[in-house]
Amino acid sequence: MTSLDDLPLRDNLRGKTPYGAPQKTVPVALNVNENTHPIPEAVAHDVLGRLAAAILTLNRYPDREFTELREQLAAYLGHGLVADQIWAANGSNEVLQHIFQAFGGPGRSVLSFTPTYSMYPLLAGGTDTRWIGVPRADDYSISIASAVAALDEHDPDIVILCGPNNPTGTPLSLDVIDAVASHARGMVVVDEAYIEFAPEGTPSALSLLSKHPRLLVSRTMSKAFAFAGARVGYLAADPAVTDALRLVRLPYHLSALTQAAALGALAHSDEMLAMVGEIREQRDRIVVRLRELGFTPHESASNFVLFGGVDDPHAVFEALLDRGVLVRDVGIPGHLRVTAGTEAETRTFLTAIAELAAERGNRMTS
Amino acid sequence: MTSLDDLPLRDNLRGKTPYGAPQKTVPVALNVNENTHPIPEAVAHDVLGRLAAAILTLNRYPDREFTELREQLAAYLGHGLVADQIWAANGSNEVLQHIFQAFGGPGRSVLSFTPTYSMYPLLAGGTDTRWIGVPRADDYSISIASAVAALDEHDPDIVILCGPNNPTGTPLSLDVIDAVASHARGMVVVDEAYIEFAPEGTPSALSLLSKHPRLLVSRTMSKAFAFAGARVGYLAADPAVTDALRLVRLPYHLSALTQAAALGALAHSDEMLAMVGEIREQRDRIVVRLRELGFTPHESASNFVLFGGVDDPHAVFEALLDRGVLVRDVGIPGHLRVTAGTEAETRTFLTAIAELAAERGNRMTS
Repeated sequence: MTSLDDLPLRDNLRGKTPYGAPQKTVPVALNVNENTHPIPEAVAHDVLGRLAAAILTLNRYPDREFTELREQLAAYLGHGLVADQIWAANGSNEVLQHIFQAFGGPGRSVLSFTPTYSMYPLLAGGTDTRWIGVPRADDYSISIASAVAALDEHDPDIVILCGPNNPTGTPLSLDVIDAVASHARGMVVVDEAYIEFAPEGTPSALSLLSKHPRLLVSRTMSKAFAFAGARVGYLAADPAVTDALRLVRLPYHLSALTQAAALGALAHSDEMLAMVGEIREQRDRIVVRLRELGFTPHESASNFVLFGGVDDPHAVFEALLDRGVLVRDVGIPGHLRVTAGTEAETRTFLTAIAELAAERGNRMTS
Repeated sequence: MTSLDDLPLRDNLRGKTPYGAPQKTVPVALNVNENTHPIPEAVAHDVLGRLAAAILTLNRYPDREFTELREQLAAYLGHGLVADQIWAANGSNEVLQHIFQAFGGPGRSVLSFTPTYSMYPLLAGGTDTRWIGVPRADDYSISIASAVAALDEHDPDIVILCGPNNPTGTPLSLDVIDAVASHARGMVVVDEAYIEFAPEGTPSALSLLSKHPRLLVSRTMSKAFAFAGARVGYLAADPAVTDALRLVRLPYHLSALTQAAALGALAHSDEMLAMVGEIREQRDRIVVRLRELGFTPHESASNFVLFGGVDDPHAVFEALLDRGVLVRDVGIPGHLRVTAGTEAETRTFLTAIAELAAERGNRMTS
C-alpha cells in the first residue's frame, strides 16, 4: 500500500495534517461560528427560483466576470462603491488566496497579529509567502504604536487585520486600520467576516477605501448572511486591485449556481440579516452568564465568545459534547470558544456549562 | 487614479492579461467546447429538488469531505474505484491547481506536450512551478520514444498528458500513458476532460491506476456531462494522493449547492451522456465537410475539431462572427477550432464556412 510518505510531496507539506474542525453530528453545533438560524422561507423560495433558471443553461460556462453579482454586492455595501471595486470567490478563504497569489508568494511576507484566524498561516504556506505572526496584547487588542512598530520591524508585503478578530472576538478600531494603511508599504487587508455583529454604528474599513488604494476589505456571506453552505466571500478595493486578482483567479471560478444563489440572498439582505440583533443578544447573554459562572469571557464584537478560566479545555470540550453541545478548542491554553446560536441553543450550552462549573465547584469544596 | 503598475504586484504577473475566451452573446457559440445540449428536463427537476433540500441547511458549512459525492463519482467511474480514491473541486482547473500545490511549487517543474491546454502553463505560473513545454510531432501525436526522451532530458516533477488533447483533438494511446507512468520519477496526470467523446471501446487511463500509484486521472463534468455551469472537476488516484490534496485544498471548497447538483446529475448519468453519440456524429460530419471545402481538419477524439488551411484565422473568425457563429482562434498559425454542437448549430457553422471558402475560391480564380 502506498502512503503519503511514498509520494513526492512538497517538503513544506511533510508531516502536516489537513485544516478543519471535527465534523460531528450533534444536537447543538456551536463550533464554527455559523449563523445557526435557517434561511427564511420566503428567501429560500426566491433563491430556488433563481437556481431553477440557472439550471436551464447549466451546460454553458457561467459569466466569468460575475458582473451582476459584483453590481449587487457593491449596492449592498454602499459607501459609493461600484462593481469594478468588487471581487468574489468561493468563500473568503479563496478571496484571501487570490490576494496572496497576486501580492505574496516566494520572497514575500504576510504579517498579522496573533492569535488570529488560523487559515492565514496556512494560506501563506500554500502560496509560499513567509508568515509573520506578531503577538497581540494580553487583552488581544492592537494599539497604533504596537502595529506601527511591527511594520517597522518586519516590513511585510501584506498585512492582515482581522476585525472583529477570530477567534478572540476583539473589536478593531478605525484608527488602527487608518494608521496601518497609512504606514504600510504593501497591501493591507481588513478581514471583516464578523463586522455585521459589531455594535450598531461601528464604522467599517470600507469608509477608508477612497483614502488608501492598497487597502482591501474582505467580507463573507457565511456568517451574518447565514449562507455558509453557498461559499461566497467577497472584497471591496480599488479597481486596480480587482484587475490584479483577475490575473490569478481560475477562469469561471464562481459557478452559475453560486452566482444565482448569492443574488437571491442579496435581493433579501434585510431579511437575511434580521437575525443579527438576536444573535448579538445571545452573545451578550453568554458573556454575562459565563462571568457569573466564574469564567473570563473576552470582549466580543462578533457572533462568538472566547472564554478563559477553563482549567482543562479538552475535558470541558468532551463533557459538553457528552451533553450534545459542540464548541471549539482553538488551542489557546485555558480557553474555549462558543458560537452564539439561537436562544434555545444558547440556553442548552449555558445549562451544560453551568453544570460543569457546579461540578468543579463541588470538587473544589469537597 | 491607481493603475495595476502602481500596486506591488508579483513580478511574474507584470504585463500579463487574464485568461479567457471572449465572452460574446451570439446565436451559435462553438468556442469553448461546451456540450451545447441543455440538461434533459427530468434531470433538471431532480437536480432542482436536491438544491431545494440543500437550501434548508445552507446556513451551515457543507460536508468538507464531500463523502457522498466521492462515493457516487467512484460508482460512476467503475474500474473498482472507491471513494477514498476520488477527489473533486470547482472545475478540473482547481483539481489541477491542487495537484500543483501538493507536488509542484518553487524548485519543481511540470512537463507537457504542446500545443496543449493553455491553462497548464498558467497554473504552473500561479504555483511557481517551472513550465516545460515539449513540442508534439507535426500531427500532434506523442510517441513512446519521444515521451521517454523528454522525461530523460527534463526529469520533471509532474507530467501532464492531455488525452484526447485540447486544442488539437488528438487521441492518446494507453501504451504511451503506461510508458510515461512507468518511466517518470514524479506524478503523472492524464487529463481525460474529453474522453467520453473518444470512439466507443477506447480504454481509459483509469485501467492503469492499480499499476501506478503516482498516476492521476482527471475528469470533468463540464463537457460530455453538459454541466459546465456547475463547475465540477474530479480525479481518481491512489488514496495517498487524495490525502496529499487534502493538505492544500481550502476547507469547504465545494459548496453544498455544488455537491447537491453534481449528485443529481450523477444519478442520471445515462441521460446526461445521451447526447454524446450525436455530438460524435456532428464532429465527424465537420471533419468530412471541412476536408471537402479544402481545409485540413485534424483527427479528433473529442467534441471539437481543429482545422488548418485557414489563410487568415483572424479574418475568418470575424467573418464567422458576422454570421452569428463564434469559434476559437487558439493561436496556432493557419488554424481555427470549432466545437461540435447540435445538428442545427453544426449546419449553421458549415454553411457559413462554406460561403467563406467559396468567396476565397472566387477571389483566387478571378
